[in-house]
Amino acid sequence: MTETLTPSVENEGLLTSSFVVEMVRQMRAIDPYGTYDSLSTTEILEPFILTKEKKREIPIIGDPDELVIARIKVFYNAISAMIESECGLMAVPLVNLSHEGFGRALITVGKLVVMDRTLRDVHRFGFPSLSKMKDEGDKILSVALELIGTYPKVAGL
Amino acid sequence: MTETLTPSVENEGLLTSSFVVEMVRQMRAIDPYGTYDSLSTTEILEPFILTKEKKREIPIIGDPDELVIARIKVFYNAISAMIESECGLMAVPLVNLSHEGFGRALITVGKLVVMDRTLRDVHRFGFPSLSKMKDEGDKILSVALELIGTYPKVAGL
Repeated sequence: MTETLTPSVENEGLLTSSFVVEMVRQMRAIDPYGTYDSLSTTEILEPFILTKEKKREIPIIGDPDELVIARIKVFYNAISAMIESECGLMAVPLVNLSHEGFGRALITVGKLVVMDRTLRDVHRFGFPSLSKMKDEGDKILSVALELIGTYPKVAGL
Repeated sequence: MTETLTPSVENEGLLTSSFVVEMVRQMRAIDPYGTYDSLSTTEILEPFILTKEKKREIPIIGDPDELVIARIKVFYNAISAMIESECGLMAVPLVNLSHEGFGRALITVGKLVVMDRTLRDVHRFGFPSLSKMKDEGDKILSVALELIGTYPKVAGL
């Protein structure tokens, strides 16, 4: 485990934030054999953290494996769950990837596309730190909620 | 070739309709070696026609092969191209399938989802006749254009 992940006063709030809690819930959801049962929050979310050093070790070109794809889905599922709990409307994530790791990630609410991202090099998917991951999730969430607020009719379709 | 596909006075108009022309264009686009060059419109679109008899021969459960998936994409690409030419805004199709042939097909224009369909048993993808296929395409097109007309702001985002 890297230093950034050691529980500290600073991390305490982060680890109990609703986004991180949701991420852990989503990770546990894809763990039918309970292999994560004894792991802590930081340990479960460790694969999402890709420090510069770790990123350098991964080849630039590569095919994503099942585990990376599952993690990408967990990330967007968590954001969708947050959108849903904030606005009360169903948010549907959609991750579409070629076997080479290129594609699109979408979240739709009703007929409204609240997030649309191009994905590239997903075999290198990860965040510099847990707080950076939370920032990214929160950013997508706030943009999505703003869009829903502006076009509630389309989101309600 | 079945009887329904023989060129007749009735079919003449169908074969020159913009939807069928677009379908042929899309089919030729995925034919880099020009194997369709000598084929007629009806011959190129023949794989899309699945009469009751032909459908009965396909097992109920089965995995879709590359060719069926390519045809599904051609169908939704053609509709997207039609939407684009009608409203002047870019329409982006997205076909997301599991290897078992279940999934979703989406078309988005700006931030507006103009079509959202659940796909099932796509290894049996096809239409009873060419005119039924055109009807289906036209139906999706008109619903999409109506949505764009109602929410032009979202479609323009």
